[in-house]
Amino acid sequence: MQVLVIGGMAAGTKAAAKIRREGGKDCHVTLIEKGNVITSIGCGLPYYIGGVFDDYNSLFINSNEEFAQSTEVTLRCGVEAVGLDRANKRLRVKELETGKEESLSYDKLVIATGASPIRPQIEGIDLPGVYTLRTPEDGAVIRNAVAKGIKRAVILGGGAVGLEMAENLKRQGVRPVIIDRAPQILPGFDRDFAEYVENRLAEKGIPCFTGENLISIEGNGRVEIIRTESRKIKADALILAAGVRPNTDFLKDSGLIFSKNGALVVDERMCTNDADIFAAGDCVVLKNRITGRETWEPLGSVAAVTGRICALAVLGEKVSYPGVLGTALIKTEDVNVGKTGLTLAETEDMDIVEATITTEDKVRFYPGVDVFVIRLVADRSSHRLLGVQVAGRGAVDNILDIGVTAICNQATLESLQSMDLGYAPSFSTAVHPLIQAVNLLLNKLQGKFVGIDGEGFHKLPEDTLCLDVMKTATLRQYRSMPVKTIHGPIPGVDFKQPIVLLCEKGKQGYLAQRKLREYGYENTVVLEGGVEFYNIEE
Amino acid sequence: MQVLVIGGMAAGTKAAAKIRREGGKDCHVTLIEKGNVITSIGCGLPYYIGGVFDDYNSLFINSNEEFAQSTEVTLRCGVEAVGLDRANKRLRVKELETGKEESLSYDKLVIATGASPIRPQIEGIDLPGVYTLRTPEDGAVIRNAVAKGIKRAVILGGGAVGLEMAENLKRQGVRPVIIDRAPQILPGFDRDFAEYVENRLAEKGIPCFTGENLISIEGNGRVEIIRTESRKIKADALILAAGVRPNTDFLKDSGLIFSKNGALVVDERMCTNDADIFAAGDCVVLKNRITGRETWEPLGSVAAVTGRICALAVLGEKVSYPGVLGTALIKTEDVNVGKTGLTLAETEDMDIVEATITTEDKVRFYPGVDVFVIRLVADRSSHRLLGVQVAGRGAVDNILDIGVTAICNQATLESLQSMDLGYAPSFSTAVHPLIQAVNLLLNKLQGKFVGIDGEGFHKLPEDTLCLDVMKTATLRQYRSMPVKTIHGPIPGVDFKQPIVLLCEKGKQGYLAQRKLREYGYENTVVLEGGVEFYNIEE
Repeated sequence: MQVLVIGGMAAGTKAAAKIRREGGKDCHVTLIEKGNVITSIGCGLPYYIGGVFDDYNSLFINSNEEFAQSTEVTLRCGVEAVGLDRANKRLRVKELETGKEESLSYDKLVIATGASPIRPQIEGIDLPGVYTLRTPEDGAVIRNAVAKGIKRAVILGGGAVGLEMAENLKRQGVRPVIIDRAPQILPGFDRDFAEYVENRLAEKGIPCFTGENLISIEGNGRVEIIRTESRKIKADALILAAGVRPNTDFLKDSGLIFSKNGALVVDERMCTNDADIFAAGDCVVLKNRITGRETWEPLGSVAAVTGRICALAVLGEKVSYPGVLGTALIKTEDVNVGKTGLTLAETEDMDIVEATITTEDKVRFYPGVDVFVIRLVADRSSHRLLGVQVAGRGAVDNILDIGVTAICNQATLESLQSMDLGYAPSFSTAVHPLIQAVNLLLNKLQGKFVGIDGEGFHKLPEDTLCLDVMKTATLRQYRSMPVKTIHGPIPGVDFKQPIVLLCEKGKQGYLAQRKLREYGYENTVVLEGGVEFYNIEE
Repeated sequence: MQVLVIGGMAAGTKAAAKIRREGGKDCHVTLIEKGNVITSIGCGLPYYIGGVFDDYNSLFINSNEEFAQSTEVTLRCGVEAVGLDRANKRLRVKELETGKEESLSYDKLVIATGASPIRPQIEGIDLPGVYTLRTPEDGAVIRNAVAKGIKRAVILGGGAVGLEMAENLKRQGVRPVIIDRAPQILPGFDRDFAEYVENRLAEKGIPCFTGENLISIEGNGRVEIIRTESRKIKADALILAAGVRPNTDFLKDSGLIFSKNGALVVDERMCTNDADIFAAGDCVVLKNRITGRETWEPLGSVAAVTGRICALAVLGEKVSYPGVLGTALIKTEDVNVGKTGLTLAETEDMDIVEATITTEDKVRFYPGVDVFVIRLVADRSSHRLLGVQVAGRGAVDNILDIGVTAICNQATLESLQSMDLGYAPSFSTAVHPLIQAVNLLLNKLQGKFVGIDGEGFHKLPEDTLCLDVMKTATLRQYRSMPVKTIHGPIPGVDFKQPIVLLCEKGKQGYLAQRKLREYGYENTVVLEGGVEFYNIEE
């Protein structure tokens, strides 16, 4: 069997190595790669630029030679796929150095060509000082430019790459500014989560200007001014981090089926509409594991998993990839964020329940304690967990991965509430933060708790009584009423009076609500997540 | 309704507060506590002693006053339960200061009396310098003693408290030695995991002497020598951390049913054999969630969860606590360890499969990268995950909690292998370490991989050929054969020759095995977890 693999990043190298390893003596695998190097770790680039590590070679899992010798895959770098003849099962390729074209035959073809950064076609885009970030060479170029004196950089795009670049440029003494044409950073997160992160970044000196289009890049021979509709920003550099698009142009006339964004459509075996052509990684569109909807997740981790599944399918094994939850995990300058499954915004047409909690991320005496803000979304009738969002300085990956595992295994809130998750003071709280969120949502489902979010707070009727129920009076504009002082009806306040209970994290509000209900108040709500999450100040 | 709760630690305060909060106006809750303080955080004591934090008040979640005022629970400290008259539903209590006894009536009784440290009855046990560690006062006493000049301490017991004490004493400049009468530290872990931790502790200057009984404590007016069968150890202090036993003596003649160790037996509603008496926390015995066997888990986290369940049951809600997996999570001086579900040792009578993997805990360029050693145990026929053990300097809680969530939700290896867990270079690897372990186990199940453990290695037939397949020759006594050099049969080696493949972590062994099989070798095994886990040196 002749297997041809196109693409030498995560999906392609994974698939090629596994097919060769398990395919037996008569399985010959050739990997072609347009660039000169393979197995590079794209997500390492911001950290290489930031000087978190200095060895350029660390950006590669293997040298070309090591890979070829270990795997016995035939490796051809500097070779680009330019056309596909499915009828004759041949791939047309071009040797980039010589321009020579040839045609390679295959029994099975694996397409793992990845994706490339989007480059907006605007004035000044070709000025020196405009950078993309995809290959190790890109990383080296930016690192050099930083060393030579970039002082101010604008980053286009507030997704994972943009935020990681901001942190790492700041680490090198560069002042970063993020601009994003979307109304928020962190695409795919609920707006209030994104705003929470924006606020925390702003406190650390990383402004995010959202809802602003990049209009032009100006400068005398190199980048000097970045202009949006609303402002012009002085900068020495512009980093393009506004997303990527699949590298599938060479397949345009192949008859393979694409999704709207140009990514290949594959079945649960990572097989295209041609039974001998498989695809994996950033160039394919996947199914959302919950909704079954098409979803595109150009992530190294997904590429590695789909590369493996693809290999098993090529080898004829029975596999069925159930799709992705759309998990994202991002470290920023001051706060980490994660999401998996469905957000509130994505469940507008579903009957769901949700709860948001702010709670300590470890036992309060432990150094470095911060908060987690956790939002859970669950199906109202089955109580199945559907989504988790989390933000905080600590181990958001822990919360997130419990969520992923729970959703992938159809966990209900009831099954989650009594799990004995790991506990030690340096890691967690005695009642694990995720379980606290589950308990809150169960309380809400049972009518024991009524909450609102930040948007709801700003829409409350004007006659709503706002009570600050924190242990210490904090919101000077509102009446203070610590929980421990509530021992009966509030003098002069009618039992039908709409009341909103405000506290730091949400917990005191919950306790106050229980008490006020017992004393006859019928119309109380708690600001979920508290003023800490929604940044409501005196 | 009159509810009486005995015990002011995690389970008791949790239950009392919740019952009062949700029980309505006519629900009166009284909490009695033998000591003077409630809501103390026992697991904080080692860190208070270690100076990780200095505020004694941080050892408490709430002051007595704050708790009573917020919850409206009637609090009576310094009051000990001394006898139970179930027929008349009365509890006999004694006010410790005055010695006055009285009898309190209840409609529902919650027993949450916790557990106390075991104090071996040996020579010298009452010498000054022998310490137990349970209450905040105990913590203050030890902290003071350290400040006054303890230089060498013996810790009796290599469980969580013992290991945390070793780390924290060392932080304060005290030289700790751990002794344990069991053949290993870390009760409940597989022996090789415990030995891995022992080795790492030894490298950090914390010796563990296992399989040694404490014979006597000697000294002229205070602790000077700790004697075991095998050695005498100079020490200024002995810390008793050899386990606890349930505080249930006062119930001896009550007719309530106990397990062998003296813990109360409860049903899935945390109800004893008396329908009006519930119990939670360290004084109850629970069911193992997988096997249904009785299991005792005296942990703050389990106490908090069972306290909550207990409260719901007292309130008449439908609850069903499914039991515990026996999760443990421990931070030590150099390495964190965790376990959940079943170990190899616990599955000797079951038809299971298992795999052990050593792998990087984050992307290799990220500062602070270390390894995880992960062992998975699964049911052979259903492929359901049954147990996880993990050790490493990093976020073992992440691996552990994914395991807990998976086991609690009946996950199979197949359902785990394609989960899109969170990935960012600072947190994890592109193929998540747990998924790598799952993949290895699936490979093993399909016969694609054959491995042995450290014990198996030492029992190999004498004629076994040991090959060092590491990238760089490391084990000088064995023939070196890096994977990339294997391109055909090994000259002079028969295809039936038993071969063991040794590498650092296990991965190169796996790759070598695949190749050697392709070239005709039928009888190869790989040391799982590698020489790094089993500390096999040249």
